[in-house]
Amino acid sequence: MSELHGQAVRLAASAKESAPALARAEGGLKNAALSAAADRLISNTKSILNANAKDLKAGKKVGLSDAMLDRLKLDKSRIEKMVQGLRQVAALPDPIGGVIDGWKQPNGLRLHRTRVPLGVVLIIFESRPNVTIDAAALCIKSGNAAILRGGKEAVHTNKALGRVLASALEEVGLPDEAVQVVESTDRALVPELLSLSNYIDVVVPRGGKGLIQAVMEHSRIPVIKHLDGICHVYIDSAADLDMARSIAINAKVQRPGVCNAMETLIVHKSVAAKFLPECLKALKKEGVEIRGDAEVVKLAKGVKVKLATEEDWGTEYLDLILSVTVVNDIDHAIRHINAYGSHHTDAIITRDFNAATRFKREVDSSSIMVNASTRFSDGFEYGLGAEIGISTDKLHARGPVGLEGLTTYKWIVEGEGQIRT
Amino acid sequence: MSELHGQAVRLAASAKESAPALARAEGGLKNAALSAAADRLISNTKSILNANAKDLKAGKKVGLSDAMLDRLKLDKSRIEKMVQGLRQVAALPDPIGGVIDGWKQPNGLRLHRTRVPLGVVLIIFESRPNVTIDAAALCIKSGNAAILRGGKEAVHTNKALGRVLASALEEVGLPDEAVQVVESTDRALVPELLSLSNYIDVVVPRGGKGLIQAVMEHSRIPVIKHLDGICHVYIDSAADLDMARSIAINAKVQRPGVCNAMETLIVHKSVAAKFLPECLKALKKEGVEIRGDAEVVKLAKGVKVKLATEEDWGTEYLDLILSVTVVNDIDHAIRHINAYGSHHTDAIITRDFNAATRFKREVDSSSIMVNASTRFSDGFEYGLGAEIGISTDKLHARGPVGLEGLTTYKWIVEGEGQIRT
Repeated sequence: MSELHGQAVRLAASAKESAPALARAEGGLKNAALSAAADRLISNTKSILNANAKDLKAGKKVGLSDAMLDRLKLDKSRIEKMVQGLRQVAALPDPIGGVIDGWKQPNGLRLHRTRVPLGVVLIIFESRPNVTIDAAALCIKSGNAAILRGGKEAVHTNKALGRVLASALEEVGLPDEAVQVVESTDRALVPELLSLSNYIDVVVPRGGKGLIQAVMEHSRIPVIKHLDGICHVYIDSAADLDMARSIAINAKVQRPGVCNAMETLIVHKSVAAKFLPECLKALKKEGVEIRGDAEVVKLAKGVKVKLATEEDWGTEYLDLILSVTVVNDIDHAIRHINAYGSHHTDAIITRDFNAATRFKREVDSSSIMVNASTRFSDGFEYGLGAEIGISTDKLHARGPVGLEGLTTYKWIVEGEGQIRT
Repeated sequence: MSELHGQAVRLAASAKESAPALARAEGGLKNAALSAAADRLISNTKSILNANAKDLKAGKKVGLSDAMLDRLKLDKSRIEKMVQGLRQVAALPDPIGGVIDGWKQPNGLRLHRTRVPLGVVLIIFESRPNVTIDAAALCIKSGNAAILRGGKEAVHTNKALGRVLASALEEVGLPDEAVQVVESTDRALVPELLSLSNYIDVVVPRGGKGLIQAVMEHSRIPVIKHLDGICHVYIDSAADLDMARSIAINAKVQRPGVCNAMETLIVHKSVAAKFLPECLKALKKEGVEIRGDAEVVKLAKGVKVKLATEEDWGTEYLDLILSVTVVNDIDHAIRHINAYGSHHTDAIITRDFNAATRFKREVDSSSIMVNASTRFSDGFEYGLGAEIGISTDKLHARGPVGLEGLTTYKWIVEGEGQIRT
């Protein structure tokens, strides 16, 4: 057993050992821990900012970009946001202990399924230290022990935040090892942790596609993952064109760098000549580069359109770039979305009941929007109160994942001595 | 691209292509397909038995054991059982299209989650040809396209059953490629199929531990799997001892070779002297070999008990062997179960409310029985109407898995032009 492997096992084993205490903790106790962590974030602001200053200094030295440094940087207002986040999670209903369903069998056995925590959750993330607090809050609330592995640039900050969390748990009588911040910055520790399926129940990578693919490749533990968001807005022949334009612009430009932004606009040919010129002009005005098929180029009327390549239809730009295509009918639109999309979030704009019904049924995506912007695809906007991530998988959790994603269930069967014959 | 890889891709791609038609099929149409398959099983009995005779002849030639040949063998009554199975699945409620939950957001967006099929299901199983029909029925009912890969010993039988299924689908107007029996017996095709996560949504291996571990090792596709069943019955200090004996015997001997049979009996020390001698005698009478700790050996009173080793506590015997231990209290029992068990099914026998409550809460198993035999842990006994398997995972589905395990959900969001600000 290598030294690193031993280190990973000690970490994971102590998390697993502390998990039952957190799993049994009543909602009030878990909320007290979250509240204590919020109070301690405030009272320890100075030492956290000192730790953060060390990370920033080291980051500058190794030449981190300004954008990276900005993501790494904490200040009073960012700490205040973490505090708010903890209090919001505390205010959510306890996801544990509810009854999912239940019934009685003809032989008198009474069955029900009740929600329980998964056990131990490993969260792997990149530079932003607020994820440390956010992820810990979600795990504590859902009764799971957490192993938090942040970016090495943020190691001093995360250590300081880890101390806050540990002392908050201790204060309310929960094991301080129920939330552990990995202090080692050795990259090779991650694959070791990902091999420990006997100790860790689920991995949630939070970050770019590179991180997620690396986790998927090495993990022997189930992963709740979030890959591409190639989202479409389809403007149906029966669309309200003012609504269509407003939603298309919102879906593309309100925040182009995120997974639920629109990457491809699809327009029914019967409204294309009326809709496209004005909409493209408006998009252009917002700084969007347009890549269209031949029909779009023809209809663009003075708006510069680059001819789209086959590759464009399957690209998640995460930028102010938009591919646009004109289709003959809704079948064509649905086929395009199912073939090139990433099954994340797709919208139809229509006043036609049957078109909406077919789109909802036949588009194979985790979220289907009718007459609303794709940008709403988000745990908070869905009213889940918290977001673990947006799952691009079909098993366990699909689409925006709230606290329920960090739970499983147990079958409880009660009888009066029944035996099987 | 190797020839085998190409073959796997063609198979999986045609399944994926046919999946939407099955996903859209209404319950009545799916039931008509199941009913047509049942009718065709009867009308094709002769050709199925001929195909089966070929497999039996080849099996004898390569020296399959009598037990293997018996599992392979079909006759009129076994075909009749398959017919009944199809009709039973047809009679179940449609798992697709139901609404899981839904609400309205403050901005007027209306959300709901609706049940949809997973897409393409790959089922890998061993010699028993009835699994071909059973698995196909579950996939058709849940709106999933199926790829069925049976044992090579049953290849002729499975081909004949595959033709029945394909013609039944065709008869009702569904694509015949929605259920495909893999005709190649090349073992190397399996890892090729298991690499096709772009086409196949879930793998369900049905068979022994060796098969399941091989699938887990090679699969890039999520697996619904069923590993060990190391089940315990704990006789509490407040147990009704007649009930305890009846359940202990049932859990061990009614069908010792299955996953929900008891492997370890745990007895509270305060009732051990009264309970054990008689219970062990009764177990012995049923042919059960007893392996006990020192306390059990002491209390056995004339019943021969082998001293259990550390290994015994973690062994799934699947046989008429039982390990027995005496514990000081319920904490000790729960600790033993969580440490040595497989988190499958564990029972407590007690009249004490607090003991039952603690056991239900603190034992980390997919099924907890109170005053009932572990043998009830089963999809049919739970009233699920069908069983995909018993999942030993915590994500997606846990414990007995019915048709719901072959479904996922879709978020439907409806608005009147809402954009995000």
